[in-house]
Amino acid sequence: MSRISALETHDIRFPTSREFHGSDAMNPDPDYSAAYVVLRTDDASGLAGHGFAFTIGRGNEVQTAACAALHHLVVGLDVEGVVADLGGFARSLTGDSQLRWLGPEKGVMHMAVGAVVNAAWDLAARRAGKPLWRFIADMSPDEIVRCIDFRYLSDALAPAEALAILRAAEPGKSERIDYLLQRGYPAYSTSPGWLGYPDDKVVRLARQAVSEGFRTIKIKVGLSLEDDERRCRLAREAIGPEIAMAADANQRWDFDVAVPWIRRLAPYGIAWVEEPTSPDDILAHRAIRAAVAPVLISTGEHTQNRVLFKQFLQADAVDLIQIDATRVGGVNENLAILLLACKFGIRVFPHAGGVGLCELVQHLAMADFIAVTGQIEDRAIEFVDHLHEHFVDPVRIRNGRYMAPTAAGFSAQMRPEALVHYRFPGGAAWRTPYL
Amino acid sequence: MSRISALETHDIRFPTSREFHGSDAMNPDPDYSAAYVVLRTDDASGLAGHGFAFTIGRGNEVQTAACAALHHLVVGLDVEGVVADLGGFARSLTGDSQLRWLGPEKGVMHMAVGAVVNAAWDLAARRAGKPLWRFIADMSPDEIVRCIDFRYLSDALAPAEALAILRAAEPGKSERIDYLLQRGYPAYSTSPGWLGYPDDKVVRLARQAVSEGFRTIKIKVGLSLEDDERRCRLAREAIGPEIAMAADANQRWDFDVAVPWIRRLAPYGIAWVEEPTSPDDILAHRAIRAAVAPVLISTGEHTQNRVLFKQFLQADAVDLIQIDATRVGGVNENLAILLLACKFGIRVFPHAGGVGLCELVQHLAMADFIAVTGQIEDRAIEFVDHLHEHFVDPVRIRNGRYMAPTAAGFSAQMRPEALVHYRFPGGAAWRTPYL
Repeated sequence: MSRISALETHDIRFPTSREFHGSDAMNPDPDYSAAYVVLRTDDASGLAGHGFAFTIGRGNEVQTAACAALHHLVVGLDVEGVVADLGGFARSLTGDSQLRWLGPEKGVMHMAVGAVVNAAWDLAARRAGKPLWRFIADMSPDEIVRCIDFRYLSDALAPAEALAILRAAEPGKSERIDYLLQRGYPAYSTSPGWLGYPDDKVVRLARQAVSEGFRTIKIKVGLSLEDDERRCRLAREAIGPEIAMAADANQRWDFDVAVPWIRRLAPYGIAWVEEPTSPDDILAHRAIRAAVAPVLISTGEHTQNRVLFKQFLQADAVDLIQIDATRVGGVNENLAILLLACKFGIRVFPHAGGVGLCELVQHLAMADFIAVTGQIEDRAIEFVDHLHEHFVDPVRIRNGRYMAPTAAGFSAQMRPEALVHYRFPGGAAWRTPYL
Repeated sequence: MSRISALETHDIRFPTSREFHGSDAMNPDPDYSAAYVVLRTDDASGLAGHGFAFTIGRGNEVQTAACAALHHLVVGLDVEGVVADLGGFARSLTGDSQLRWLGPEKGVMHMAVGAVVNAAWDLAARRAGKPLWRFIADMSPDEIVRCIDFRYLSDALAPAEALAILRAAEPGKSERIDYLLQRGYPAYSTSPGWLGYPDDKVVRLARQAVSEGFRTIKIKVGLSLEDDERRCRLAREAIGPEIAMAADANQRWDFDVAVPWIRRLAPYGIAWVEEPTSPDDILAHRAIRAAVAPVLISTGEHTQNRVLFKQFLQADAVDLIQIDATRVGGVNENLAILLLACKFGIRVFPHAGGVGLCELVQHLAMADFIAVTGQIEDRAIEFVDHLHEHFVDPVRIRNGRYMAPTAAGFSAQMRPEALVHYRFPGGAAWRTPYL
């Protein structure tokens, strides 16, 4: 019998703001960061689980402290017990009677739960010798349902409904696994569209994305309507009429600003408009969606938990959703969100980028294809080509598609030298002057 | 010219779980705690501002770290500039381009903003030589409107509407101030109803509350319907038919459990049912409210920000709201919420208890009476008789009413010896064995 012997935490930051990567209307200068956790075990094989919460710089020490605050719920647990009941494990973290006050189930404390829960799934998948997407795909519908906390969901998705969805996806699983292994999962590219980029760079990167096989690109908007119209026009000219182009406002607008702005961008052929307003504002999304139809509206990368996703779906407030691997309470809650989306007939375009988000979220999208919806070609995972070199099992993109990971685990592990070099504030990356 | 010279933080915890004070259906064992901040200045008078975020124990170190993470936005600022533009000050904290990712405007990071913003209001009121309620009451409608961040509110409350509400409240201000100083503000008592208390203690404390002049008491419910019915019956018998009795479920139920449960308690005369389900679930509150009418439904102590409050009001999801002085982004955001409630014609019954919440929130309710709604006798502030002795300017309750504070500031300052004795983990209160 082996036990979890330590919950290690690391404050890891990449000085990305020096080059304006990742700049958008609300986040002009992100330093992509990870509050990184390792669940060590006393297993003789050296078994460990890796996970992290993604942040954009300042405050990563707060996020790291929140991960450490879960220590008493994790260290000393029997590994076999954890992997046999990942639902109970996740509920024990969200349910801590004192920590719960700090959310409940939102913000820093909930992202910390997500980091530790994801590390436990990484550990479970490694122990089973499978990549996470396959580990989930090989679970029975009953096992998956047992992982989900249905509290506050029962008015939209009962356990029996979730079970029916999962059972309906059982036929064809092995054919879909073969398809995935051969063809991968569609990706879309956000690399061309950062607000900090000059026009010629947008055009060059948009053309490059198309030549690399991407069928959808995304442009950041929301600071200046005039600039947005010009950038959308230039990007559309660069990619031609056949490629989809989404626009991401990163929460910049109120209702009365969003509606005319979106109408002005619509003629350039906008596949969807992402985060038009506050990620907390279900009713404003609904109103914007109604006003700008048939333009599609989406949100999700900042959606705090399953209760908000449920309401976005119940209220017909969005046409699509993004999921994020590290915003909510880990794999369990993302499975609940995927099941909700399936029940409501809403497609999921997972949010990625930052550092490590592509590595993680690909597993969830692939598990959705194999075990939940059975659908793949009318959706895509975001892709940004940054910082993958710091991971032991980085994503592999071929012809605009994510190739299915084959190494065991959740692809969450950073290379040991990255943990040293980018440690904040002591690592070498932070000892050089900040320009 | 004086400057803010330091943002001090203190992790302060009271071992209240040893006596089961504050036990409810979701929080069985709280250790009431404060992530306490002091804005020091280099002013020769020793001017300082005090504030805190309230938590219930574990994780208070995370909350304290979040307060410290605002350091770079505060230290070095000109005091006069801060007090002259408390709106700009609050927006500079919620708007930090990297910290914003940790919310936005929710959870640990937002409560930290609230603590620091409240400390700035404490400082401003002290400098003006006025208790905070009076400091706000003496501001012009324009000055109050400039304090508010209308982002994401404009579809429900425009600045001009807020101004009209505040201007309509100007006549009669001085008469209301006299009334408040003489008669105080109604309180209601939660002391009898904690779930951990045996029946005879509930009955004894309910009778005591009535004899002390309280016209409303509150009972915690939600763990066992049989127990709840018995406790409501006993409490109703103890207080007689004339006293109001509210029930607080502390987020325990889903819709399908809430509705029959509330119907079973309704015959005991329930003034309102508080937090029947997830504080994030606007649509479930609306459905519960519709199903159990005419029983009144409320929420608010865990409502994360003005965007959620706005939607609860827009959706007709609640009959009453609670505000909390330390859950949202400080006085500014609570003023926005009070204005929203006024516009929608919804009464506010402020949440208090814990440690220091009574001291703070009384100022907001009193400012609402003087400067926003002009209303007082059909509403009440929660009161729990715990831990007031640790404050320099503790609440004064007479005949079931909060007497208006007269000392300058926000009543937020803890006694210096409390900051030493209850410091976690090193203070004397935590060096004795935990029973």
